[in-house]
Amino acid sequence: MMKVISNPNQSEWSALIRRPVFDVTELFEVVRPIFDAIEENGDEALKELEQKFDKVSLQYLRAETEEIVEAEKLLDANLKEAIDIAYNNIYAFHQAQKFEPIKVQTMPGVNCMQKAVPIEKVGLYIPGGTAPLFSTVLMLGIPAKIAGCKQVVLCTPPSREGKINPAILYAAKCCGITEIFKIGGAQAVAAMALGTASVPKVDKIFGPGNQYVMAAKQWAALSHVAIDMPAGPSEVEVLVDGTCVPAFVAADLLSQAEHGPDSQVMLVATNNDVVHLIEKELERQLEELPRKDIAQKALQNSRCVVFDNMDNAIAFTNEYAPEHLILAVDNYNEVAQKITHAGSVFLGNYSCESAGDYASGTNHTLPTKAWAKAYSGLCLDSFVRKITFQEITEEGIKHLAPVVETMAEAECLDAHKNAMTIRRKSLNL
Amino acid sequence: MMKVISNPNQSEWSALIRRPVFDVTELFEVVRPIFDAIEENGDEALKELEQKFDKVSLQYLRAETEEIVEAEKLLDANLKEAIDIAYNNIYAFHQAQKFEPIKVQTMPGVNCMQKAVPIEKVGLYIPGGTAPLFSTVLMLGIPAKIAGCKQVVLCTPPSREGKINPAILYAAKCCGITEIFKIGGAQAVAAMALGTASVPKVDKIFGPGNQYVMAAKQWAALSHVAIDMPAGPSEVEVLVDGTCVPAFVAADLLSQAEHGPDSQVMLVATNNDVVHLIEKELERQLEELPRKDIAQKALQNSRCVVFDNMDNAIAFTNEYAPEHLILAVDNYNEVAQKITHAGSVFLGNYSCESAGDYASGTNHTLPTKAWAKAYSGLCLDSFVRKITFQEITEEGIKHLAPVVETMAEAECLDAHKNAMTIRRKSLNL
Repeated sequence: MMKVISNPNQSEWSALIRRPVFDVTELFEVVRPIFDAIEENGDEALKELEQKFDKVSLQYLRAETEEIVEAEKLLDANLKEAIDIAYNNIYAFHQAQKFEPIKVQTMPGVNCMQKAVPIEKVGLYIPGGTAPLFSTVLMLGIPAKIAGCKQVVLCTPPSREGKINPAILYAAKCCGITEIFKIGGAQAVAAMALGTASVPKVDKIFGPGNQYVMAAKQWAALSHVAIDMPAGPSEVEVLVDGTCVPAFVAADLLSQAEHGPDSQVMLVATNNDVVHLIEKELERQLEELPRKDIAQKALQNSRCVVFDNMDNAIAFTNEYAPEHLILAVDNYNEVAQKITHAGSVFLGNYSCESAGDYASGTNHTLPTKAWAKAYSGLCLDSFVRKITFQEITEEGIKHLAPVVETMAEAECLDAHKNAMTIRRKSLNL
Repeated sequence: MMKVISNPNQSEWSALIRRPVFDVTELFEVVRPIFDAIEENGDEALKELEQKFDKVSLQYLRAETEEIVEAEKLLDANLKEAIDIAYNNIYAFHQAQKFEPIKVQTMPGVNCMQKAVPIEKVGLYIPGGTAPLFSTVLMLGIPAKIAGCKQVVLCTPPSREGKINPAILYAAKCCGITEIFKIGGAQAVAAMALGTASVPKVDKIFGPGNQYVMAAKQWAALSHVAIDMPAGPSEVEVLVDGTCVPAFVAADLLSQAEHGPDSQVMLVATNNDVVHLIEKELERQLEELPRKDIAQKALQNSRCVVFDNMDNAIAFTNEYAPEHLILAVDNYNEVAQKITHAGSVFLGNYSCESAGDYASGTNHTLPTKAWAKAYSGLCLDSFVRKITFQEITEEGIKHLAPVVETMAEAECLDAHKNAMTIRRKSLNL
């Protein structure tokens, strides 16, 4: 079912790790008119776009308090409890990421400080579609709450009846989010980037979405707001040796494959026998999946690469830079030390990706498309800025003035030099 | 000389804090062909572009060892010492930003970890032009060195004689940078984003530049690499009360104004008398500046806003979100607590911007154009990624399985659920 490649030369690696390419600038042509319409007609444009794309006629864009209160009642008690537990785990892990201010005296009288402040206004996009991604509400809303963001705006497409899934509303309530809007797709991104009468303009936009949502975020990032990260289809790599449990590995590969036909699934092995066992398990488990057709398509594009030594397998993995990496190998702690490029790493046979997708505590918003080479996954940092401060005393001027004056002069910036000279002279130094 | 506005209504603030707007997508039309040329013809295209834009004919793009060794000999001993001191201060402050790995047990048997790893390949762009910005080499090169980036590539435009300023080469040597290329402008960004036979492809590009460099960075960020941050013309706000020293304030405003005619200079005051004294000092000091014409043009676009109370002055400042903010006020520590939007803050009469520009220890690469609302200034974080890890034991499965299974089912992702179920069942739980 998967294409198996044995011991590829390093020259062949780049072809094996290639992701589907699409030209985001072509999509700009699609999203730009949406921005223009919203800039011109605000809420009216949003209602028209919701009619057009989500087939829903809305009187109000904002979810009313009754709907939010009602949602909690509609929710199954089991699911509520599960969300509460996930909330606590995610909260605990992100709370531990809090940044303590630092202060360094670099020279006598020269004090440099750095502290974190929350991003004041953030926008969270939660996709709709086949699955109501309430888990993403937790993943974005909890760090926003811990960071202390003052205004948290959430947009999500409503059903054709104009409703939002109760689990999404309940997860939002857990995170203290009250500004919830029934807007989907590129228009949601544009609304939060530009601001309208109903929707507040935010400083940074977070959240997953289809290629139009992504194009809208990248377009917005050119001039209006910051965004969490660029994104592509979701990915998993499972790195296995002879100690893996083939049924577990197959289940992990399928849990990625069911996301969509463009999901990226990669199996890297140092053992040939186990590959055959995994393939058999894949066939068996696939039959039982409701989303079989989607998963099957994704698997057809997936690859299995077999290496005869672990060093090459690790080097290949770092080149691939997968969003999710499961290390189903014996000495997983040792291997993990050598992983330099991945979004999130799952250690050993019992650490399945779905644990981190929902409830273990780590964030599930992670860099895809080898962006792990340059980007972190979402974390508390994503919701704060770090500001530096400095206090220079009269003694500091004595030590620092000659340095700054010499450097500024060499850079031909006389007014920079003078700002220091005038202070030094005032102190008769 | 400056336009003075007294107690503007909040409705007038947005006009007062407006920065010059330009459409980056129009500049894409200029930089796109440069990317195309380099993608097609690599080093040959780079040499042609250097001939065209920097009027220099290069045999080799890379600076040779002899030129680097020679540079240190050419450099004035005073300047060398100043660079060494600045290096130590910047190193000390950025070293203190090191991230210690965290580990949280969110449930029994569920361990979540986060650690920082260096971005492997980084590209630093150092502009040429009227001033040789060797200070920027330190600001980019030192955190790259502390982070442990494996490959650090530096591009800077050469003189018409094909040489690089010795101070730039010496600062690079201090930071352990050996891969130095004589390439300027958008072509330098494109070379590092795409890679050529001589210039390595990097994962993230840093550094200032003119609008073409910025457009090239934003273009590259759409598909090829990460970038440090978007950028516009440099800015300073000086917030003063009656305790400021007018001559110091004037010197600070001028040190910003000399950068270029588009530099943004903002004076915010809670005292009218002091504004007149600052204006007189501006006129007096301006006469003595070699870059008088540039500074005068910048001052003509600058503004002085007078408020009759400090709270409004602070609120206005946070709305403006300046790149640099000097607090020349009596109770500067108290005011600093209320600053939520700024790149870097300078406390009291002796903390001039040029201290931070060169040598106090803080970074001088900071968010302009109110991007301080969403972006941090450059810091050690900018050169690392944070990867999460999780290890779930058999006991962890017991606690986590019901939560993950319930949530995955509610999101209609059965394969996600099954990845947990199959593990739980294997343990007879």
